[in-house]
Amino acid sequence: MSWLDEGALFSQIGAFIAEDLGRGDITTQSTVVRNTRARGRFLAKEPMVVAGLEAAEAVFSTLDAQQQIEAFVSDGDEVEVGKVIARTNGFADVLLAGERVALNLLQRLSGIATETRRYVRAVEGTKAAIVDTRKTTPGLRMLEKYAVLTGGGRNHRFGLDDGVLIKDNHIALCGGVAAAVERARQSVGHLHKIEVEVSSDADLREAIKSGADILLLDNLLPEETARMVELAHSLAPNVLLESSGGITLETVRAYAEAGVDLISIGALTHSARAMDISFKIQPG
Amino acid sequence: MSWLDEGALFSQIGAFIAEDLGRGDITTQSTVVRNTRARGRFLAKEPMVVAGLEAAEAVFSTLDAQQQIEAFVSDGDEVEVGKVIARTNGFADVLLAGERVALNLLQRLSGIATETRRYVRAVEGTKAAIVDTRKTTPGLRMLEKYAVLTGGGRNHRFGLDDGVLIKDNHIALCGGVAAAVERARQSVGHLHKIEVEVSSDADLREAIKSGADILLLDNLLPEETARMVELAHSLAPNVLLESSGGITLETVRAYAEAGVDLISIGALTHSARAMDISFKIQPG
Amino acid sequence: MSWLDEGALFSQIGAFIAEDLGRGDITTQSTVVRNTRARGRFLAKEPMVVAGLEAAEAVFSTLDAQQQIEAFVSDGDEVEVGKVIARTNGFADVLLAGERVALNLLQRLSGIATETRRYVRAVEGTKAAIVDTRKTTPGLRMLEKYAVLTGGGRNHRFGLDDGVLIKDNHIALCGGVAAAVERARQSVGHLHKIEVEVSSDADLREAIKSGADILLLDNLLPEETARMVELAHSLAPNVLLESSGGITLETVRAYAEAGVDLISIGALTHSARAMDISFKIQPG
Amino acid sequence: MSWLDEGALFSQIGAFIAEDLGRGDITTQSTVVRNTRARGRFLAKEPMVVAGLEAAEAVFSTLDAQQQIEAFVSDGDEVEVGKVIARTNGFADVLLAGERVALNLLQRLSGIATETRRYVRAVEGTKAAIVDTRKTTPGLRMLEKYAVLTGGGRNHRFGLDDGVLIKDNHIALCGGVAAAVERARQSVGHLHKIEVEVSSDADLREAIKSGADILLLDNLLPEETARMVELAHSLAPNVLLESSGGITLETVRAYAEAGVDLISIGALTHSARAMDISFKIQPG
Amino acid sequence: MSWLDEGALFSQIGAFIAEDLGRGDITTQSTVVRNTRARGRFLAKEPMVVAGLEAAEAVFSTLDAQQQIEAFVSDGDEVEVGKVIARTNGFADVLLAGERVALNLLQRLSGIATETRRYVRAVEGTKAAIVDTRKTTPGLRMLEKYAVLTGGGRNHRFGLDDGVLIKDNHIALCGGVAAAVERARQSVGHLHKIEVEVSSDADLREAIKSGADILLLDNLLPEETARMVELAHSLAPNVLLESSGGITLETVRAYAEAGVDLISIGALTHSARAMDISFKIQPG
Amino acid sequence: MSWLDEGALFSQIGAFIAEDLGRGDITTQSTVVRNTRARGRFLAKEPMVVAGLEAAEAVFSTLDAQQQIEAFVSDGDEVEVGKVIARTNGFADVLLAGERVALNLLQRLSGIATETRRYVRAVEGTKAAIVDTRKTTPGLRMLEKYAVLTGGGRNHRFGLDDGVLIKDNHIALCGGVAAAVERARQSVGHLHKIEVEVSSDADLREAIKSGADILLLDNLLPEETARMVELAHSLAPNVLLESSGGITLETVRAYAEAGVDLISIGALTHSARAMDISFKIQPG
Repeated sequence: MSWLDEGALFSQIGAFIAEDLGRGDITTQSTVVRNTRARGRFLAKEPMVVAGLEAAEAVFSTLDAQQQIEAFVSDGDEVEVGKVIARTNGFADVLLAGERVALNLLQRLSGIATETRRYVRAVEGTKAAIVDTRKTTPGLRMLEKYAVLTGGGRNHRFGLDDGVLIKDNHIALCGGVAAAVERARQSVGHLHKIEVEVSSDADLREAIKSGADILLLDNLLPEETARMVELAHSLAPNVLLESSGGITLETVRAYAEAGVDLISIGALTHSARAMDISFKIQPG
Repeated sequence: MSWLDEGALFSQIGAFIAEDLGRGDITTQSTVVRNTRARGRFLAKEPMVVAGLEAAEAVFSTLDAQQQIEAFVSDGDEVEVGKVIARTNGFADVLLAGERVALNLLQRLSGIATETRRYVRAVEGTKAAIVDTRKTTPGLRMLEKYAVLTGGGRNHRFGLDDGVLIKDNHIALCGGVAAAVERARQSVGHLHKIEVEVSSDADLREAIKSGADILLLDNLLPEETARMVELAHSLAPNVLLESSGGITLETVRAYAEAGVDLISIGALTHSARAMDISFKIQPG
Repeated sequence: MSWLDEGALFSQIGAFIAEDLGRGDITTQSTVVRNTRARGRFLAKEPMVVAGLEAAEAVFSTLDAQQQIEAFVSDGDEVEVGKVIARTNGFADVLLAGERVALNLLQRLSGIATETRRYVRAVEGTKAAIVDTRKTTPGLRMLEKYAVLTGGGRNHRFGLDDGVLIKDNHIALCGGVAAAVERARQSVGHLHKIEVEVSSDADLREAIKSGADILLLDNLLPEETARMVELAHSLAPNVLLESSGGITLETVRAYAEAGVDLISIGALTHSARAMDISFKIQPG
Repeated sequence: MSWLDEGALFSQIGAFIAEDLGRGDITTQSTVVRNTRARGRFLAKEPMVVAGLEAAEAVFSTLDAQQQIEAFVSDGDEVEVGKVIARTNGFADVLLAGERVALNLLQRLSGIATETRRYVRAVEGTKAAIVDTRKTTPGLRMLEKYAVLTGGGRNHRFGLDDGVLIKDNHIALCGGVAAAVERARQSVGHLHKIEVEVSSDADLREAIKSGADILLLDNLLPEETARMVELAHSLAPNVLLESSGGITLETVRAYAEAGVDLISIGALTHSARAMDISFKIQPG
Repeated sequence: MSWLDEGALFSQIGAFIAEDLGRGDITTQSTVVRNTRARGRFLAKEPMVVAGLEAAEAVFSTLDAQQQIEAFVSDGDEVEVGKVIARTNGFADVLLAGERVALNLLQRLSGIATETRRYVRAVEGTKAAIVDTRKTTPGLRMLEKYAVLTGGGRNHRFGLDDGVLIKDNHIALCGGVAAAVERARQSVGHLHKIEVEVSSDADLREAIKSGADILLLDNLLPEETARMVELAHSLAPNVLLESSGGITLETVRAYAEAGVDLISIGALTHSARAMDISFKIQPG
Repeated sequence: MSWLDEGALFSQIGAFIAEDLGRGDITTQSTVVRNTRARGRFLAKEPMVVAGLEAAEAVFSTLDAQQQIEAFVSDGDEVEVGKVIARTNGFADVLLAGERVALNLLQRLSGIATETRRYVRAVEGTKAAIVDTRKTTPGLRMLEKYAVLTGGGRNHRFGLDDGVLIKDNHIALCGGVAAAVERARQSVGHLHKIEVEVSSDADLREAIKSGADILLLDNLLPEETARMVELAHSLAPNVLLESSGGITLETVRAYAEAGVDLISIGALTHSARAMDISFKIQPG
């Protein structure tokens, strides 16, 4: 059992194949002789961090339990243009039926891992971790969060049940930071910490006084962030701080140097460009 | 019944909500008083073509059958920064539970529609249609192809069962263009046309001679494309031609002016940036 | 991977077994000693074209992954009375649990293949293909269309998404053949041909003028059919023609000789008689 | 809640629609203007016993919750050629999307009910009931058994868990009728009766001695049947007797007059011809 | 294929694991080195009748197809404190992920088997069988009824479709015992016996006269039960009698000695205490 | 949207009904006239804390969307013998089909709430909270944890993904408390606290030094517990402490008085006795 829940992965992969295959691959059925054998190679057409080899393999093994992928790199490795990432051989109709779904997964997940790696590099030497958000593609959250890990990032909440994060919308409905944090403290399970968004010094003081464990600084400039971090540490040396909101590859280091512990980046998952990978098939 | 199969849409939306909600929204449960009412507004934070209002509404109505969205624009409309796209009101816990999934869908689909619109504008005045590919996000093909339509593009195949498109990989396995087209002609249903990739003049002549209905010109330069189009039309005036392969917003018009009927662009779906849309909630 | 999508086949077979088995086979559980081994034979009780061996085997292998069928004929073979079609051995309770479902499938599919073969024989020497319809048993379309192929027929549309066939009902709602064909031409994907029902010379001329690819002649007499075929060919030599509507084994040849390319027969699937096949079990 | 479990019915109907609709009705989408309203009528093209109106209605209401059928007859009624069985009006695309599935169900179930009624008529005045078998179409057992009831027949077992019926195959594996009946008596629940196949006088005596409640006489001639009935009644006046095996409309009365209580007919469900019913749609 | 339908068992087990595992075992993932091997032992912490070994094994083999359990006892065996019931070895993360679900099943089923065995012992030497009821845990009926069998009891109805048991509520709605029994006799399948609740001598006489096969005596004292049994046997020597309603381990023998054939005990399944079993894991 | 995820609840309830109903309620179908109306009342046969009214109502409304329950108490209320808890009226066949499943849920959940209330009462006046465990019935975790809340307890982890709890088995595999806590601290999300089992003073010191947030004291006597609490507080005033392991209604107060914050009791869910509730139906 790997980090990925294999059962769930395979059931998703089956649905992805069904989406593409429908009632069957009429081109292959009508042009390629039954039982033709073939070899296929995944080739990097640009530099990238590879992610998703297990998912790509699952596509083929779902179609034909015998079919495996021989990978020449591991998830998380950086590869150059022209690198053969993996190869597989089997029945031609299986390769052709699985090609597009395997590529769609591998290209997207590698895109996320590659983008994540850039952010991680940009903050190297600081204590800040790059974390993802819930701004993932509906249906692909587990896979996309795996790609973030592969790229060197860390995972924020997997879902709304997975942690208490009190945002502006909650505070507006509760009548203030203190009320929100105190209510949460009283009713949430004893194993959960409490993170709360603070947008002013007053909020920050209230949050710390109410016992918040982590403070979210959303849509601040780096210099404001630095000031808030300092204030927070003066009041509660162990409190964690997270920056979020429109942070780019250009600005991320400034936030890291402002002293926050976590920087969350929605674009890792909602806007990563798919990596260019080809799959060429030959008889044999 | 709209263009979108509502049954399938709702069943997918249910799965997307479950992915985000898990065992429940512990932040809202522990901070917001039960039965609090609230109002929410979707606000465009950048110019865009809107797509996915029906899907966003489905998120809320799946959580609470009574809850609807009041939209101020229609799918396909272009909006400016600051435009309130839609509003909704209902129970605060429903708004907070649905917010992220609704945004994830609306932002992604609007991103695809916006990118498609750019390509469609770029070829305006030519006969070329912008078409999508099967390079869609696994699990979201129907929604993403709907977004392409919304942006002004047209849909290529929905799956491998939906049309005969003989590519280089098939030809390699069949021993040539003519053999592939003839086999397809013999065994595929009488309602299907046959499209085949051609990469040389000889291929093109073979394909037309074998009765191919559409020719795919992959990874050619615009000038090569123009020459192939001319050759094809001299042999078969009614044959359709499609360009594909690494075509960008910068180069798309040159392909259109080369005289092809269809230009397929994988990036419409595999690399569109999510549009920036916010959802603000207020008591009430 | 065979022509039959094995994944879908196995999932259906599981449901068919559950339908018959419910909470378990109480007769066998209460009379046959656990782990008794047995042998079973499928025996043809009348002449037939066999179809469905793979489905029958799937029944047993779903119940017990070890259990296979040894077939003495192939799908599509014609067998005489008394022929042992296949045999299997395994646990008695598995044979008894799968017997009825396996027979129900094999008998029905062989019935369809046998009936199809009769029609195919009847038009031998003409250019007409015998094709099926969407008048299949709900839930069994893929299997029944497979049986038609096995009998020597060809498949018409697999579903409403699989081809454009404009019938009288559509024409009535569109205001005429020309309007319907032109609208379809404009919005349907470029890989689809257009078939349209024509019921008069005027319709036929309109259809051809609008660029229809295939004409459906429904409920005409053979002589009317012959006249329409001639008219169509005089206007468009490459147009295809299909006859349908109440055509029987007695009349099918007259339609074939009228010159149509396709003759569709609903009775192949909606009224084929199940073939008589027995399954005898012996200790062993 | 009717006799039919509505929940299960609707879930099956959804699958039947999906099978036919696939990714959508491309003909209607491309030819019929959105939101066109239409009226449809189900018309009997031959005399029949109607069955399946509820299932046909479920098809339309699954597609559009608002859409109902107005039936002019009830399930079980006999209608003449030309009778309008039911009508419906709604959106044209809903009518066209549901037409084929609704007809496939209504035609098949009416075929079974009609065939059953013929057998029931043939034994009128005797005490014999016409009963069905497990030789039903995989996936349609509940609907087909409902059609048998509608035609005036009675239902035998719904599945292997629904009654103890010891057949020749069990007896061969158990080493005799007495052993089989006694084992069953010991382990089966106290609410179940025991039916056993007997093929000789010796078997019959053994069965009655072991306390069998019902005797199955398979593949006997009517005169042999009469003799066995007499023998059975002389030994156990209350024992029930069932005839089965190749009994036709021509021979069924002879079996009934031989004195059996039940006559089971596989052909009711495995070989009934679909009734000819049309569905005509008009604007409006 | 065992008595337990393995297909259904495995599908349930998968859902039970998903319920406990959610998005993954974050404790083990974050503390135990990947691919660590371990050994685990199930240890009886009190005397009990073991039941559910197959279910416990299915938990582990669902998580990892290679992992099996080596059992030192069989379902139905009585074990003393300190007995090692079974052991298994495999990957540590598999053992830790499956531990709780396996124990929850094994402890509950052993609790039911142990309680059943006590009742069976209490009536030893009489003709009364101890039977269960439909008062089972929703979702676990098949497993719990299997545990009753394992403990030496017998199974009453598996569901409402599995036998005719006319209770006070039905009688109240039908207008009397005789009406209810007669209606049931007319419409229920010929393989079903009829059981009816009787609460007075008059009821009992009516029931027997109408041909009821089994009489249910609910909430009577042992002496009343004895009298009713005698009356029933004087009228119909072969009628079966069942006692139910608040019968305890203290009172059960008195009912058995009153002469009934069956004593049904809801507490076997609705209130059995889970047995204390531990699962200790060691490296290796 | 209540605390209970209604979507999931209804889907489970549907499965519970299917388990009991199978192919239909043959007793009611054969004895009660269609469309008979009836009234039913849930009656407490012993004192209890009621829990599960929403689930009981969901049973009836799943069977018939119109049918509701009129409750006379709320979940969490204590009722005396003879109290009418709720009533409902509707079709007799719906009441009879839902009766057993509704009772099975209501009786079990009320049993858990009642037992929980006893423990909560027993520690009144101390700071200790009564919490549940993962020793719930497979498939019923959410409902059973809801019943614990209803009884006045609090919920521990909902699953293995819901919190970090390092137990003896993990420690054995990691080589010590310190190693385990430190590894967890490094890889688990920033919103999670860490709980660890300590069984000696040395462990306790290590755990606190490594930054554990909560300490689990398993299978200690009350006096040992008191000493460990004191030691812990002397080292880390804010650390939380939990007692577990064989704590009964007799001993629970001693643990509470030892100064722990949480006392977890597996028996709340694994061994609670079902409460005695009847459902009586009358015509009307």
